[in-house]
Amino acid sequence: MDTISNRLAELGLTLPPSPPPGGIYKPFVQTGALGYLSGHGPYRGESGYIIGKVGRDLDLAAGQEAAKQTGLALLRTMKDALGSLDRVARLIKVLGLVNSADDFHQHPMVINGFSQLMADVFGPERGIAARSAIGTNALPGNMTVEIEVIIEVRD
Amino acid sequence: MDTISNRLAELGLTLPPSPPPGGIYKPFVQTGALGYLSGHGPYRGESGYIIGKVGRDLDLAAGQEAAKQTGLALLRTMKDALGSLDRVARLIKVLGLVNSADDFHQHPMVINGFSQLMADVFGPERGIAARSAIGTNALPGNMTVEIEVIIEVRD
Amino acid sequence: MDTISNRLAELGLTLPPSPPPGGIYKPFVQTGALGYLSGHGPYRGESGYIIGKVGRDLDLAAGQEAAKQTGLALLRTMKDALGSLDRVARLIKVLGLVNSADDFHQHPMVINGFSQLMADVFGPERGIAARSAIGTNALPGNMTVEIEVIIEVRD
Repeated sequence: MDTISNRLAELGLTLPPSPPPGGIYKPFVQTGALGYLSGHGPYRGESGYIIGKVGRDLDLAAGQEAAKQTGLALLRTMKDALGSLDRVARLIKVLGLVNSADDFHQHPMVINGFSQLMADVFGPERGIAARSAIGTNALPGNMTVEIEVIIEVRD
Repeated sequence: MDTISNRLAELGLTLPPSPPPGGIYKPFVQTGALGYLSGHGPYRGESGYIIGKVGRDLDLAAGQEAAKQTGLALLRTMKDALGSLDRVARLIKVLGLVNSADDFHQHPMVINGFSQLMADVFGPERGIAARSAIGTNALPGNMTVEIEVIIEVRD
Repeated sequence: MDTISNRLAELGLTLPPSPPPGGIYKPFVQTGALGYLSGHGPYRGESGYIIGKVGRDLDLAAGQEAAKQTGLALLRTMKDALGSLDRVARLIKVLGLVNSADDFHQHPMVINGFSQLMADVFGPERGIAARSAIGTNALPGNMTVEIEVIIEVRD
């Protein structure tokens, strides 16, 4: 088992299964040392996606939980694509979208649910990236959060 | 004529003229092997942009048509920038924004109108990229779709 | 003093202080020759962020001013990260988000406030990038504009 998968086990975290294809795209594309991950949502496996709008249907804590679950789904895709999470050299850039009410303004706090997970799993230097956190009026299937990531890959 | 332009002709597809500049930006910027295309809309030439909100003014099929037209506008910019579409090695990353009603949730299906075009034109390996599809409450000029793309370029 | 800082002084422009950390992210991450800047807002220092929705709370000119201020905040981060603004080889890609009313459609005009600043400071060839300008229903802290940038860095 790779070091990062051991770390996940230590933290009591389980990766969800690979999400079913949601459209005409690849979950992961690498060019040079950069790996681009498609926008992922808070997929839990059999129980599907966490849905609803933060600031209307869900509170801040539930939004953070959705962002964390999205992080676990992204780790699943990284593991599937690279064979081992140890090949993730570091996270470079994160775009975090929050399905939010027009008067909700704590998007960075929501996306911190994702970023804290990555800091815990990879350590701060490797897990914390440049980031934008923004709101949107609607996401696919009414999911709560959508996050895309650029990573640096090593052999 | 290049191979991809031949393929477009076979498919009965015509590229629109280059869209007029919509602000202070370049349509295409290359750094190393990566080419960044600015956000494009469903530009048709003389008849202008396809406008309106999916799930309110337009249905799913009309939204997909707008995404396809946006793809044709992006191909025009690639051709203008590179001289030949054969220099597009592959699509790396797509960000697709849908001008959508707050209760519309089929953004991936809309952006598939773009992605299917790219798969048809370049073939699936080369034309299908990592992707995020999201909603937004407003786009420039009320256009229906805005799509930006990162491609890999070859000499 | 570096050439670009001299240019800023000539233009009568002052950079704001570094914005306080707004979440779990790094303001700037470099990989190879590419530098990724996190989403920044119109931070002014002691007087905080420019807030409000364009097309409802703020008019177009005020939105452009917010985009320009966001550009100054981004220049501050580039200078902090690189030591000198002369190390910015050029701007590659801009994503500009406008906190906007559902019926506001002049997002490119708003983001031009940023792009004109960069053209003035770096010159058009180096300062004008590929760009997407879009609307959103909500931004962190209700700030008016959020902009992220990819730059090319030189030694």
